[in-house]
Parts: sequence; structure tokens; C-alpha cells
Amino acid sequence: MCKEVYAGVNNSVMSTVGKSTNIVWYECKIGKHERQQLLKQKGCVVWITGLSGSGKSTVACALSRELYARGYLAYVLDGDNLRHGLNRDLSFSAEDRSENIRRVGEVAKLFADAGVICIASLISPYRSERDACRALVPDSFIEVFMDMPLELCEARDPKGLYKLARAGKIKGFTGIDDPYEAPLNCELVIQLKNGECSSPSSMAEQIIMYLDEKGFLKA
Amino acid sequence: MCKEVYAGVNNSVMSTVGKSTNIVWYECKIGKHERQQLLKQKGCVVWITGLSGSGKSTVACALSRELYARGYLAYVLDGDNLRHGLNRDLSFSAEDRSENIRRVGEVAKLFADAGVICIASLISPYRSERDACRALVPDSFIEVFMDMPLELCEARDPKGLYKLARAGKIKGFTGIDDPYEAPLNCELVIQLKNGECSSPSSMAEQIIMYLDEKGFLKA
Repeated sequence: MCKEVYAGVNNSVMSTVGKSTNIVWYECKIGKHERQQLLKQKGCVVWITGLSGSGKSTVACALSRELYARGYLAYVLDGDNLRHGLNRDLSFSAEDRSENIRRVGEVAKLFADAGVICIASLISPYRSERDACRALVPDSFIEVFMDMPLELCEARDPKGLYKLARAGKIKGFTGIDDPYEAPLNCELVIQLKNGECSSPSSMAEQIIMYLDEKGFLKA
Repeated sequence: MCKEVYAGVNNSVMSTVGKSTNIVWYECKIGKHERQQLLKQKGCVVWITGLSGSGKSTVACALSRELYARGYLAYVLDGDNLRHGLNRDLSFSAEDRSENIRRVGEVAKLFADAGVICIASLISPYRSERDACRALVPDSFIEVFMDMPLELCEARDPKGLYKLARAGKIKGFTGIDDPYEAPLNCELVIQLKNGECSSPSSMAEQIIMYLDEKGFLKA
């Protein structure tokens, strides 16, 4: 029987581990660089933050669509959707909301490492939590702030949550009785122009121009 | 100001939500199918299970390398590595080992949905836990059993863990004082041939042939 694990000459390193000598270790040479070459893009995290109803999911989807149309691989991590899977053990307590964001940040890091343009769409109201996610991928974190007025978000109220929060039926709702800490120094801000919303496509275009300028759309 | 979120004609649906009428909802048309077309492959989960020292990581890396050489995008989720990130809040208690596997299964599902060939490498000793991961991606879960004799794994002992377990310094170690439940009906079994190990490349080749036969290597 074979005590050593054999690898091709170009993929093996001889090393000493503990009291064993000359165990052949298998070195995995396919890393982020190689995957980026394959995809002709750079893995990164586009982190879209903002109030409920500010248009995060809309922009995430539009960005995913526009990138696909150009031949790039993107994947959307949606805070709400993940609560049906990876984060289904978490409640909406302060501690669990924080753990929710931590996990999404860690998964986004894995996608970026896989070479994918990962689009994370979460309210993520606290600076410290967003900054912790940024620290996981410091060179490839693009924070996009959906800077929409609370009144607009509340007027939209796509999930009816503001109404519930105003009625006191939801406690600790961001923008109502829990703070949203706007980014101080994010990569992109998406705002109204002359009081009007841009189309999802043009908001996505704004992000794509940034990705292009910073070299994420080539290997 | 704009109460509705506008989307291109081909990407919008009119709907009524709560008491609001005719809110334009943005429908994200880029799904798994489109990503698979882009990558010319099908997203799936190759779940490699077996004792510590059975060669899971080695095969995972070889498979990643061989797929890359053929132009396919794969990504390895390694149980040990994830414990430094996503699962760093988890101990090695029975409950936390189970949660570790659940999370890896959920993340693997996301990667498969992204169109990636996700290679998960974990001891994952219990059938029920592997089956729960399978249930997340029932049509694209390829369970690969590293069917290596305990004596071989223990002789290799790449991390020195068997020695610690035999000395009673690690409790509940799979294969020593905790059971490994071999798969009953997995997609692939990797075994010794005439008492000899195959090379990592040829073990990877065995998996690639399966992926090819089942249509995962085309969109």
C-alpha cells in the first residue's frame, strides 16, 4: 500500500511534518489568479448598502444582467434570500443580524476568490460591520451606497415593512427606530438626479464604469 | 420623485402589493441557466467524503487542476479552510460539526447555482448529514467516497491527528472513537487497485469521466 500521496512532479513538494519525513504533499496550483484568467475578469465584492426600499435588489439584478450581457460572471447574494438557506438559523436580534452580515461577507469572499463578481445586497446599517466585510477582501471591495431619502423608501415600502414599523409591530427597524449609518468613504454613491431616479440600467452602468476603470473587467 | 422602480420593458412585471397598485417590480432574468451558458458547464456539487488522511484534499485539488486544464471553472470548499472564515465560530462538538457541514452544504448550493463546479472536501462522517446536503441540490450532487482502509489513513496521518486520537488527546475522532458511516449509494467510490493508490490525476480523471457522462461538462 502507498503511504505517500503521489502528485505530478510539477505539483509536489517534499516536506517534513512532525516526525514524518519526506511526505509528499500535494500543492494545489489552481488559485484565484488562474480562475480570473479563465473568466477574463477579477473576482471582487460589490457591496450594496442602503435602507429597505432604496433599490438595492433592483440595482443588484440590473448589474448582474448588464454584466452577463457583456460576458462577465456575476452572482447576487441577497440578504433576504440567504435567510432561507445558509442563515435560516438566525433571527432578527441585533446579534443575529450581525452574524448574518458576517456570514454573507465570508461567503462573498469565497466567491471573489473563485473569480466571480459577487454582488451582495443587504441593508447592512452599521459601518463597523460593513468595514469588517471590507477587511476580508480589502483590495476588491466596492461599497455602493444607495443614498435615497427615507421618505422615498417609505413611500415605496415594497414589503410593507415601514408600515409595520410605524405601527410598532416591528421593533428596531432601520431608518425608523434603529439607525442607518451612511458610509463615510465608500466607492460609489447612487443618488437621485434632480429629484428623479435613474433607471436600474443606468445605475448599473455607473457601477460597471467603476469596475472597468479599476481593472476588474479584465484578468 | 419616483415612487416606482423602473425597469426595461423586457425585465418588468406589473403587480399589486398590499394597497399599492401597479408597482413596477424588477425581475432578475439572469439565473443559473444563463450562467451555465456563459461557462459552458453545469453547476454542481462534487462532495468528497472519507476518513482523515484518505486523500480528499488531494483529489479535490487534482480535480480542480484537471478541470481548469480543460477550461472549466471549479472551486474547492475545504472543511478545514472554512473553519478559518465562515465557520470560525464553530467548535468540534457534535452539534457544531453538524452545523459546519450544514453551512458548507448551503454554500456549495450557492456555488452550484452560480454555475460553478463546487468541490466540497469534508470528512462528513454521518449519512444523514450528507443526505441533507444532497437534498439541497438533488439533481446535481455527486458524492465521492474515498474508500481507503483505516490502517492506510492512520499510517499516513498527515496532520498527526490519529496519533493524538490514539493517545486519547482528541476525543470523538472519526474512525477511532467515532463512527464513519460509509455511503450506501454514492455516485463514485475511489479505492485502492490491487492494493495500490492511483495517482491523484487518475482519481480526478475518474470523477471527470462521470461528470462528462452525466452532462455536467456542457451547458
